[in-house]
Amino acid sequence: MANMYDHAYDLEKAIRESEEFKGLKAAYDTVMNDPSSKEMFENFRNIQLELQQKQMQGQEISEEEVQKAQSVVQVVQQDEQIAKLMEQEQRLNIAINDISRIITKPLEELYGQPEE
Amino acid sequence: MANMYDHAYDLEKAIRESEEFKGLKAAYDTVMNDPSSKEMFENFRNIQLELQQKQMQGQEISEEEVQKAQSVVQVVQQDEQIAKLMEQEQRLNIAINDISRIITKPLEELYGQPEE
Ligand SMILES: [Ca+2]
Ligand SMILES: [Ca+2]
Repeated sequence: MANMYDHAYDLEKAIRESEEFKGLKAAYDTVMNDPSSKEMFENFRNIQLELQQKQMQGQEISEEEVQKAQSVVQVVQQDEQIAKLMEQEQRLNIAINDISRIITKPLEELYGQPEE
Repeated sequence: MANMYDHAYDLEKAIRESEEFKGLKAAYDTVMNDPSSKEMFENFRNIQLELQQKQMQGQEISEEEVQKAQSVVQVVQQDEQIAKLMEQEQRLNIAINDISRIITKPLEELYGQPEE
Protein backbone atom coordinates (compact mmCIF):
# COMPACT_ATOMS: atom_id res chain seq x y z
CA MET A 1 0.00 0.00 0.00
CA ALA A 2 1.30 3.43 -0.91
CA ASN A 3 2.11 5.50 2.13
CA MET A 4 1.07 9.01 3.16
CA TYR A 5 4.09 10.65 1.60
CA ASP A 6 3.59 9.01 -1.80
CA HIS A 7 0.04 10.32 -1.79
CA ALA A 8 1.17 13.75 -0.67
CA TYR A 9 3.60 13.94 -3.61
CA ASP A 10 0.83 12.82 -5.99
CA LEU A 11 -1.39 15.55 -4.59
CA GLU A 12 1.36 18.13 -4.98
CA LYS A 13 1.70 17.13 -8.64
CA ALA A 14 -2.07 17.36 -9.14
CA ILE A 15 -2.09 20.85 -7.60
CA ARG A 16 0.76 21.92 -9.85
CA GLU A 17 -1.10 20.62 -12.90
CA SER A 18 -4.52 21.98 -11.92
CA GLU A 19 -6.30 24.71 -13.84
CA GLU A 20 -6.41 26.66 -10.58
CA PHE A 21 -2.64 26.68 -10.14
CA LYS A 22 -1.85 27.20 -13.83
CA GLY A 23 -4.30 30.11 -13.92
CA LEU A 24 -2.67 31.66 -10.88
CA LYS A 25 0.81 31.24 -12.29
CA ALA A 26 -0.19 32.83 -15.60
CA ALA A 27 -1.82 35.78 -13.81
CA TYR A 28 1.20 36.16 -11.52
CA ASP A 29 3.66 36.12 -14.44
CA THR A 30 1.58 38.70 -16.29
CA VAL A 31 1.74 41.07 -13.32
CA MET A 32 5.45 40.45 -12.74
CA ASN A 33 6.23 41.21 -16.37
CA ASP A 34 4.53 44.61 -16.25
CA PRO A 35 6.74 47.02 -14.29
CA SER A 36 3.95 49.34 -13.13
CA SER A 37 1.60 46.48 -12.14
CA LYS A 38 4.49 44.70 -10.44
CA GLU A 39 5.37 47.72 -8.33
CA MET A 40 1.75 48.33 -7.37
CA PHE A 41 1.22 44.69 -6.45
CA GLU A 42 4.38 44.46 -4.36
CA ASN A 43 3.48 47.64 -2.53
CA PHE A 44 0.05 46.15 -1.80
CA ARG A 45 1.52 42.88 -0.54
CA ASN A 46 3.97 44.67 1.74
CA ILE A 47 1.12 46.58 3.37
CA GLN A 48 -0.84 43.34 3.77
CA LEU A 49 2.10 41.51 5.34
CA GLU A 50 2.76 44.39 7.71
CA LEU A 51 -0.84 44.34 8.97
CA GLN A 52 -0.82 40.55 9.28
CA GLN A 53 2.34 40.65 11.35
CA LYS A 54 0.88 43.30 13.62
CA GLN A 55 -2.25 41.20 14.07
CA MET A 56 -0.25 38.07 14.89
CA GLN A 57 1.80 39.97 17.44
CA GLY A 58 -1.40 41.23 19.02
CA GLN A 59 -0.60 44.86 18.20
CA GLU A 60 -3.47 47.23 17.69
CA ILE A 61 -4.26 48.31 14.13
CA SER A 62 -5.38 51.91 13.90
CA GLU A 63 -8.47 53.16 12.07
CA GLU A 64 -6.08 55.05 9.82
CA GLU A 65 -4.14 51.92 8.87
CA VAL A 66 -7.36 50.05 8.07
CA GLN A 67 -8.50 52.89 5.83
CA LYS A 68 -5.14 53.11 4.12
CA ALA A 69 -5.18 49.35 3.41
CA GLN A 70 -8.72 49.54 2.06
CA SER A 71 -7.89 52.40 -0.27
CA VAL A 72 -4.81 50.54 -1.53
CA VAL A 73 -7.01 47.51 -2.31
CA GLN A 74 -9.37 49.73 -4.26
CA VAL A 75 -6.52 51.28 -6.22
CA VAL A 76 -4.78 48.00 -7.11
CA GLN A 77 -8.06 46.38 -8.15
CA GLN A 78 -8.42 49.01 -10.87
CA ASP A 79 -5.39 47.41 -12.47
CA GLU A 80 -7.03 44.67 -14.52
CA GLN A 81 -4.00 42.39 -14.34
CA ILE A 82 -3.84 42.62 -10.56
CA ALA A 83 -7.60 42.14 -10.24
CA LYS A 84 -7.24 38.95 -12.28
CA LEU A 85 -4.35 37.78 -10.09
CA MET A 86 -6.35 38.37 -6.91
CA GLU A 87 -9.27 36.45 -8.38
CA GLN A 88 -6.98 33.53 -9.22
CA GLU A 89 -5.44 33.63 -5.76
CA GLN A 90 -8.89 33.34 -4.26
CA ARG A 91 -9.79 30.40 -6.51
CA LEU A 92 -6.70 28.47 -5.50
CA ASN A 93 -7.14 29.39 -1.83
CA ILE A 94 -10.63 27.91 -1.86
CA ALA A 95 -9.26 24.66 -3.30
CA ILE A 96 -6.37 24.54 -0.80
CA ASN A 97 -8.78 25.12 2.10
CA ASP A 98 -11.04 22.34 0.84
CA ILE A 99 -8.06 20.00 0.53
CA SER A 100 -6.86 20.92 3.99
CA ARG A 101 -10.32 20.16 5.39
CA ILE A 102 -10.34 16.78 3.64
CA ILE A 103 -6.98 15.62 4.94
CA THR A 104 -7.48 16.79 8.53
CA LYS A 105 -10.82 14.98 8.75
CA PRO A 106 -9.41 11.84 10.42
CA LEU A 107 -7.91 13.94 13.22
CA GLU A 108 -11.03 16.03 13.56
CA GLU A 109 -13.18 12.92 13.88
CA LEU A 110 -10.87 11.50 16.52
CA TYR A 111 -10.75 14.60 18.71
CA GLY A 112 -14.18 15.95 17.89
CA GLN A 113 -16.14 12.93 19.11
CA PRO A 114 -18.87 13.97 21.51
CA GLU A 115 -17.95 12.96 25.02
CA GLU A 116 -20.15 10.49 26.87
CA MET B 1 -6.06 12.79 -15.14
CA ALA B 2 -7.31 12.57 -11.59
CA ASN B 3 -7.96 15.99 -10.10
CA MET B 4 -6.76 17.58 -6.87
CA TYR B 5 -9.77 16.45 -4.89
CA ASP B 6 -9.41 12.79 -5.89
CA HIS B 7 -5.82 12.91 -4.71
CA ALA B 8 -6.80 14.67 -1.52
CA TYR B 9 -9.30 11.89 -0.72
CA ASP B 10 -6.65 9.26 -1.47
CA LEU B 11 -4.30 11.05 0.90
CA GLU B 12 -6.96 11.22 3.58
CA LYS B 13 -7.45 7.47 3.28
CA ALA B 14 -3.68 6.89 3.48
CA ILE B 15 -3.50 9.02 6.64
CA ARG B 16 -6.37 7.09 8.16
CA GLU B 17 -4.65 3.79 7.40
CA SER B 18 -1.17 4.90 8.46
CA GLU B 19 0.67 3.44 11.44
CA GLU B 20 0.92 7.01 12.77
CA PHE B 21 -2.83 7.54 12.80
CA LYS B 22 -3.70 4.04 14.01
CA GLY B 23 -1.17 4.39 16.81
CA LEU B 24 -2.65 7.73 17.83
CA LYS B 25 -6.17 6.36 17.77
CA ALA B 26 -5.21 3.37 19.92
CA ALA B 27 -3.45 5.61 22.45
CA TYR B 28 -6.39 8.03 22.49
CA ASP B 29 -8.92 5.24 23.05
CA THR B 30 -6.81 3.81 25.87
CA VAL B 31 -6.80 7.17 27.66
CA MET B 32 -10.52 7.75 27.04
CA ASN B 33 -11.36 4.35 28.50
CA ASP B 34 -9.54 5.04 31.76
CA PRO B 35 -11.62 7.48 33.84
CA SER B 36 -8.72 8.95 35.81
CA SER B 37 -6.45 9.34 32.75
CA LYS B 38 -9.35 10.78 30.78
CA GLU B 39 -10.07 13.43 33.38
CA MET B 40 -6.41 14.37 33.68
CA PHE B 41 -6.00 14.59 29.92
CA GLU B 42 -9.10 16.69 29.42
CA ASN B 43 -8.05 19.06 32.16
CA PHE B 44 -4.66 19.39 30.47
CA ARG B 45 -6.22 20.07 27.06
CA ASN B 46 -8.53 22.71 28.47
CA ILE B 47 -5.60 24.59 29.95
CA GLN B 48 -3.73 24.30 26.64
CA LEU B 49 -6.70 25.59 24.63
CA GLU B 50 -7.20 28.50 27.03
CA LEU B 51 -3.59 29.61 26.64
CA GLN B 52 -3.74 29.20 22.86
CA GLN B 53 -6.86 31.35 22.68
CA LYS B 54 -5.26 34.04 24.81
CA GLN B 55 -2.21 34.00 22.57
CA MET B 56 -4.28 34.27 19.39
CA GLN B 57 -6.20 37.19 20.84
CA GLY B 58 -2.95 38.89 21.70
CA GLN B 59 -3.62 38.78 25.44
CA GLU B 60 -0.68 38.63 27.77
CA ILE B 61 0.06 35.30 29.45
CA SER B 62 1.30 35.72 33.00
CA GLU B 63 4.39 34.07 34.49
CA GLU B 64 2.01 32.27 36.84
CA GLU B 65 -0.04 30.81 33.98
CA VAL B 66 3.09 29.57 32.21
CA GLN B 67 4.28 27.87 35.40
CA LYS B 68 0.87 26.32 36.01
CA ALA B 69 0.78 24.93 32.47
CA GLN B 70 4.30 23.54 32.80
CA SER B 71 3.52 21.80 36.07
CA VAL B 72 0.34 20.31 34.58
CA VAL B 73 2.42 18.91 31.68
CA GLN B 74 4.81 17.35 34.18
CA VAL B 75 1.96 15.80 36.12
CA VAL B 76 0.10 14.37 33.13
CA GLN B 77 3.28 12.94 31.63
CA GLN B 78 3.67 10.75 34.71
CA ASP B 79 0.55 8.97 33.53
CA GLU B 80 2.02 6.39 31.17
CA GLN B 81 -1.06 6.25 28.98
CA ILE B 82 -1.10 10.00 28.52
CA ALA B 83 2.63 10.11 27.88
CA LYS B 84 2.12 7.51 25.15
CA LEU B 85 -0.75 9.55 23.66
CA MET B 86 1.34 12.73 23.59
CA GLU B 87 4.17 10.83 21.92
CA GLN B 88 1.76 9.54 19.25
CA GLU B 89 0.32 13.03 18.75
CA GLN B 90 3.79 14.34 18.10
CA ARG B 91 4.53 11.56 15.60
CA LEU B 92 1.41 12.31 13.60
CA ASN B 93 1.99 16.07 13.82
CA ILE B 94 5.42 15.66 12.28
CA ALA B 95 3.90 13.69 9.40
CA ILE B 96 1.09 16.23 8.90
CA ASN B 97 3.58 19.10 8.89
CA ASP B 98 5.73 17.29 6.32
CA ILE B 99 2.66 16.67 4.16
CA SER B 100 1.59 20.27 4.46
CA ARG B 101 5.06 21.41 3.38
CA ILE B 102 4.91 19.08 0.37
CA ILE B 103 1.55 20.26 -0.91
CA THR B 104 2.20 23.97 -0.41
CA LYS B 105 5.48 23.78 -2.33
CA PRO B 106 4.01 24.90 -5.69
CA LEU B 107 2.66 28.07 -4.08
CA GLU B 108 5.85 28.69 -2.17
CA GLU B 109 7.90 28.37 -5.34
CA LEU B 110 5.61 30.78 -7.16
CA TYR B 111 5.66 33.50 -4.50
CA GLY B 112 9.09 32.82 -3.10
CA GLN B 113 11.01 33.46 -6.32
CA PRO B 114 13.81 35.95 -5.79
CA GLU B 115 12.95 39.29 -7.32
CA GLU B 116 15.11 40.64 -10.09
CA1 LIG C 1 0.15 48.08 -15.91
CA1 LIG D 1 -5.09 5.87 35.01
